[in-house]
Amino acid sequence: MKKHIYIYSPSSAVRDKASFQRGVKRLQAMGYDVEIDEAALAKHQRFAGDDTTRLAAIHRAAASGADVALISRGGYGLTRILAAIDYKALAKAIDKGMQFVGLSDFTALQLAVLAKTGAVTWAGPALGEDFGTAALPDDIMQACFDDLITGQGEGAGWQIPRVKPRSTTENATDSIASTPIQTCHSSDFSVENTTLWGGNLTVLSSLIGTPYFPAIQGGVLFIEDVAEHPYRVERMLTQLLYSGVLAQQKAIVLGQFSNYKLVPGYDSGFNLANVVARLQGQVKARVLTGLPFGHVATKVLLPVGAAITLAVEGRDALLLWGHQH
Amino acid sequence: MKKHIYIYSPSSAVRDKASFQRGVKRLQAMGYDVEIDEAALAKHQRFAGDDTTRLAAIHRAAASGADVALISRGGYGLTRILAAIDYKALAKAIDKGMQFVGLSDFTALQLAVLAKTGAVTWAGPALGEDFGTAALPDDIMQACFDDLITGQGEGAGWQIPRVKPRSTTENATDSIASTPIQTCHSSDFSVENTTLWGGNLTVLSSLIGTPYFPAIQGGVLFIEDVAEHPYRVERMLTQLLYSGVLAQQKAIVLGQFSNYKLVPGYDSGFNLANVVARLQGQVKARVLTGLPFGHVATKVLLPVGAAITLAVEGRDALLLWGHQH
Repeated sequence: MKKHIYIYSPSSAVRDKASFQRGVKRLQAMGYDVEIDEAALAKHQRFAGDDTTRLAAIHRAAASGADVALISRGGYGLTRILAAIDYKALAKAIDKGMQFVGLSDFTALQLAVLAKTGAVTWAGPALGEDFGTAALPDDIMQACFDDLITGQGEGAGWQIPRVKPRSTTENATDSIASTPIQTCHSSDFSVENTTLWGGNLTVLSSLIGTPYFPAIQGGVLFIEDVAEHPYRVERMLTQLLYSGVLAQQKAIVLGQFSNYKLVPGYDSGFNLANVVARLQGQVKARVLTGLPFGHVATKVLLPVGAAITLAVEGRDALLLWGHQH
Repeated sequence: MKKHIYIYSPSSAVRDKASFQRGVKRLQAMGYDVEIDEAALAKHQRFAGDDTTRLAAIHRAAASGADVALISRGGYGLTRILAAIDYKALAKAIDKGMQFVGLSDFTALQLAVLAKTGAVTWAGPALGEDFGTAALPDDIMQACFDDLITGQGEGAGWQIPRVKPRSTTENATDSIASTPIQTCHSSDFSVENTTLWGGNLTVLSSLIGTPYFPAIQGGVLFIEDVAEHPYRVERMLTQLLYSGVLAQQKAIVLGQFSNYKLVPGYDSGFNLANVVARLQGQVKARVLTGLPFGHVATKVLLPVGAAITLAVEGRDALLLWGHQH
C-alpha cells in the first residue's frame, strides 16, 4: 500500500505556487499518495488563512491518518496560535504512527508539542523549498525522507568541518571552517540515551520563558538560522546562556546559518566562527558544528524529542536514534 | 557651575565620527562641560573596544562624578557583558545624582540595573544620532535633556494618534493612525504610583528568562523598535504575553516603530496597526500609542524604573514623575 502524505499550511501563505505543485508531483513520482489540505493555498494577510483556518488545518492533518504530515512552507504564523492547538490530538496521532515533518516557523509547534506532551516530531524538509525546487531535490534530503516514511531511519552522520589558522586580515571570510574554533578538537566524545531537541534559533528563543519551551535536562540541542547576522545569533545564544538552558545541555550542535550578510569594513573579523568559539568558552557542553540541517538543500531529518546517542570520533559525528516505530 | 556630561561607548564602535564631534560641540554650545571617555572611539571588531575595554568605560563613567553619563551610540555589545557589570557601583553613582542616559542596545544595561538594584536610568538620546545630526538637534529632545540635567523635568505628554476607518485595499498604508485600533477610544484612564519601565523591544525580549529581566508588577511598560517587521514585533509581544509579563502590567505604551518595510502584495493588510489591535484584544492592560520615543528625532526622556503616574484624558496622555532629585 502506498504511503500517505498530508500537505498543509500552518504558517505563512504559499507564495510560490509553482514550487508547491512541483513538490506535490515529485512526491507522487516517489510513489507516495499525496493529500492536499483544503486550506493549503489559503491566504489571509501574510498567513495561509486566518488563525482559525490554520488551526483547523493542523487538526485536520492530525486526523488525516496519514503517515507523514508535511508543511508546505515555514514563514510566520505558528507562534501566535500556540495557545489554541489541541496538543493531545497531535500526540494521539503521533502515537498511532503519524510523523509531523517541517522546519523554521514549524519549530514553534515542535517545541510546544514536546513541552506539552513529550511526543516526537521531525525537523526536516518543507514541500515547496525542498521537494519543489526548480532543480532536482537534494539526494540526501530525499533519502532521509524515504527512510523516515518507510521506518528505516536509524540516525544521521556528518563530518565536523576542519579548521584552518585564523585570518588576520580585516575582511576575513565568514566561514566557520576558516577560523580555529575550540569545538573542532579531535577528542572523542559520546552521550547516550539523551533527548535531542531544537530547531530554528530565532523561533526557539522566542519561546524562552513561555509554557511552550521544553525543559530538557542533559539534552542535545541543535540550532540553525537564516538571514540573521552573527551578532543576532550571539544575542540569542546569550539569552539561552543567561536563562540557564545551555548549562543543562550535554552538547550543542550547530546546523547551517545561511543567507546573512556581514558588513565589510565594520564587522572587522566579527563573524560566526567568533560567536561559536565564544560559546564554547562559556559552556561545559560540547559545541559541534557542521550538522547538515537548516535553510539549505542538503538536510537530514532529526527527531525532536527523541532519545538519541551522539558519538564523535575525530571529525566524524553520528546521531543515532534507532527505529521510531 | 557648568553641568558635567560624560561621553562613553558601551556598545558598538562609533562609525560616524563627524556626528560624534558635532554632538560634542553642540553639548558644549549648550553650556555643558563635556568629558570624553578615553575609549569612546575605540574599535574591536564591531564593538567600541573589546569586552574588557567597554566594561572599564562603563565603570569609569560611573566613577566620573558627572551629572549625566551619555552613550555615544547604541548598536550591539551590552548583552554579552551584563554578567560582568558592577551594578552596585552604578547604583551608588545614581544614588549620588548621576543620570545614565541612552537607548536601543542601552536598554540591556537599563533593565539589568533595574533588575539588580532598582536604580533609575533614563531612556533618552544618544550623542551622535541625536546631538550630532547634520541639521539642528530636535527641539523637544533638547528641551527634555536640559530639563533632566537641571533637575526640572516632571513628565512628558503626547497626543494619542487619531484613528480613521480601515482601508480595505491590498496596499493599505502602514500607519497606526490609519486603522481603527481599540487603544484609541476616548475613555479616560489613569494609574498612579506605578513603575515605568521598558525600552527597545528586541533588546528587552532578549532578556526574558534571564536574571537581567526586571519583575515589575502593575507597571507601565513602554516599547519601541527599529527595522523590525511587524510580524517580528508581534512575535516578541507574543513572547511577553505567553511568559505572563503583559498580564502583570497596567498599561503598555507604544513608542515609535521606524524604518521597517512591509512586503507589497504579500503582507496584504498585515501591519503594525493589526499587531496593536490584536495586542489590545489579548491583554487587560490599556494599550496606548504615539509615545514620542524611539529611533526618531523627536524623543522625550523617560525614567526607567521610576514611580510614575499615567493619565489619559481623551487623546491627551501624560506621564508624570515629578522631580528626581
